[in-house]
This record gives sequence, C-alpha cells and structure tokens, in this order.
Amino acid sequence: MEKLIEKIRKEGTVLGEDILKVDRFLNHQIDPLFMDEIGREFARRFRDDRVTKVLTAESSGIAPAVMTGLHLGVPVVFARKKKSVTMTDALYSEKVFSFTKKSEYELSVSKKFLSADDRVLIIDDFLANGQAAGALVKITEKSGASLTGIGIVIEKSFQEGGSLLRKQGIRVESLVIIESLAGGVIHFADTKREVYAR
Amino acid sequence: MEKLIEKIRKEGTVLGEDILKVDRFLNHQIDPLFMDEIGREFARRFRDDRVTKVLTAESSGIAPAVMTGLHLGVPVVFARKKKSVTMTDALYSEKVFSFTKKSEYELSVSKKFLSADDRVLIIDDFLANGQAAGALVKITEKSGASLTGIGIVIEKSFQEGGSLLRKQGIRVESLVIIESLAGGVIHFADTKREVYAR
Repeated sequence: MEKLIEKIRKEGTVLGEDILKVDRFLNHQIDPLFMDEIGREFARRFRDDRVTKVLTAESSGIAPAVMTGLHLGVPVVFARKKKSVTMTDALYSEKVFSFTKKSEYELSVSKKFLSADDRVLIIDDFLANGQAAGALVKITEKSGASLTGIGIVIEKSFQEGGSLLRKQGIRVESLVIIESLAGGVIHFADTKREVYAR
Repeated sequence: MEKLIEKIRKEGTVLGEDILKVDRFLNHQIDPLFMDEIGREFARRFRDDRVTKVLTAESSGIAPAVMTGLHLGVPVVFARKKKSVTMTDALYSEKVFSFTKKSEYELSVSKKFLSADDRVLIIDDFLANGQAAGALVKITEKSGASLTGIGIVIEKSFQEGGSLLRKQGIRVESLVIIESLAGGVIHFADTKREVYAR
C-alpha cells in the first residue's frame, strides 16, 4: 500500500534496531480518514471470503478493525487484556508475552461472540513475533469458527511472526512489510515480495 | 438518540444496581455501522465548534472517537493506560480511579499531540463517576488547549460525573441519559430532560 509506505517514511521513527514508532497516525494519535482507507483495503482483500466477524485485540487494533468491519458490514470483537467486572460470561483466554512491554498478559473473548458458524478475519496493527496474532488464532480455533485470514497494517518480516503463521497455512495479508530497521533505516520489502506474501 | 435507546433496551443487560452491560455493540463486540452513526451524531452536535482534535481513553472510547474524528475530519488521540516502550516523549499524565475495575491507573498523552492551538472534543463510551472524563479534562487544561465539550455515548445521571462536569461550565452532550438501573430496570431520562442537558 503505497500511501502507507509514504506515511511511515514521513511520520514514522525508528527506535533501536527493531521498533518502529508510528504514534502519529496509528497507535496513539489516529488519522481516522487514513484508517478508513486501511479498512477499505482490508475489506477489498477479503471481500470474497464471507467474513462474519472481525477479531482484534485492544487497543491499537481497534481503529483498523472497526474500519474493516464497517466496510465489510460485520461486527468487530476486540479481545480484552484485563477482565472488567462486566465480563461475567464464559471466556476464551490465551496468554501472550509482549516483547515491547516485557510482560505477560492474557487476551480474553466472551464465548457468546464467537461460534462454529463464524468466519473470522483477524486484524492487528503490527505483526512482529506473532504473539498477539497467535493468541487470536488459538481463540478462534477454540471457538470452532473458521479462520479466513489475518490482515496486518505493518509486518516486520525480520521477526518470526509472519513466517510462523504462514507455515501453519494461514493467509496473512500485510499492507506493508518491513525487512529491516537496522541503523535506523526503514527497508520496505519490494513489491514482488509483497505480492508473493499474498 | 432514539436508536441508541432501542439498542440498549434490546441488547443491554443490568448488573447489580449501577452497571449496564452493553458488550454486544459498544465495549467488547462493536457494531461498526452503528458506531458510524454515533460518530456522525457527535460531529453534528459539535460541527460549529472548530474542533481540531478528538481526545479519548483506551479502549472502549476508541471506536466512537475514531468515527467522530472521521466525520469531523480531525485526528483522534487516545490516552494510554500503560506506558509502552514506544512512549519516549514527554507526557501529560493524570491518575484515575476505576470503580468498575476497583483499581487506580494513569492516563497519559504525549505532549506533542496537544497544544495551545488545539480545540479539543473529549469522547467516551460511559460517563458515571466522571473519573476518566475528569482526567482527560485536566490533560487538556495542562496542554493549554481549549475544551469545546464532552460527548458521551451513555451517561448514568444517578452517578455524579455529569453534574460535576456541568458545574464546571463544561458542555456535556450525552446521546442517552440513564436515570436509574434500580431493580434491573433501565429508566431513561425523558426527552425534555435530554434537551435540557444540551
């Protein structure tokens, strides 16, 4: 997605060797018009997959997931990290280790929102080690729903999440793929590679 | 907002005397088409206020805030509860006590996303004791930005948040106001009261 590459070049910052900071439009400040375009693009890619539900994790996945749900016309469920007092139903829960936050947490989804009839599209902002996406895949499997695929805004292919998920036969659609952040320089995968990734 | 009242009647559940569970369309599962209508309604109410930024708190505020930002054509900033490793900038932070989660947390916003030139519209899903909204008001004040008002999806007027904020002279626009949940029955404020609240 050319416009996303441009946006990352203009507004992204590299921290260390492996962290890309995109808090100007994606995960702290959000550009809603651009999120709308992102949602439209995911909807286009999964248009023929009879998706019945978009699944994401709080918090940074919510904006792109809601826009995808809007363009597909289906509900969005976001897995919660903390159980609130209103989560009184039976839950599907999976543990996640966050490398950026250096701590473990649990993602939970109320059982009533996923069923064997569902065709789930997982959406998330980043794919790095694949911890969060992997937990959402397991939650989908536990519910008996079918997984149509995973839509990722920014994939870092020098971390193993994408290849681990694709090895399981899962369709992973990343709007951009970053091959390296070494030396503070953002190297995007070329178009051919991106097409192959589809 | 008639459609919201209908949606709460059909899909909401009362827990105890003071908690309304609306996880079917607002804060666990999200109905994106309905969020779009909610965003359009907030945008309509604040259309003439030259809003430059929508401010909310993760996670349940994000969906209505992003849709409001979409219809106003302005960026959305969501205050974060946990500092991630990518939050390396100077922050505005305020403590919040959550009555539903029975714990204290801090809301933080990077200073670079709010300035004295901004005209801020705060959006949140619920207004009960006003803890989260109050913290967002203080963060706005600290930044020197002007506060145009607060847009709330569901206000519970039997808790003090709304009256405390209005006493400070802040314009609070709630799409529905619930007067009581006693005995498990949802009592909505009548239209006259709702108009007065505007």
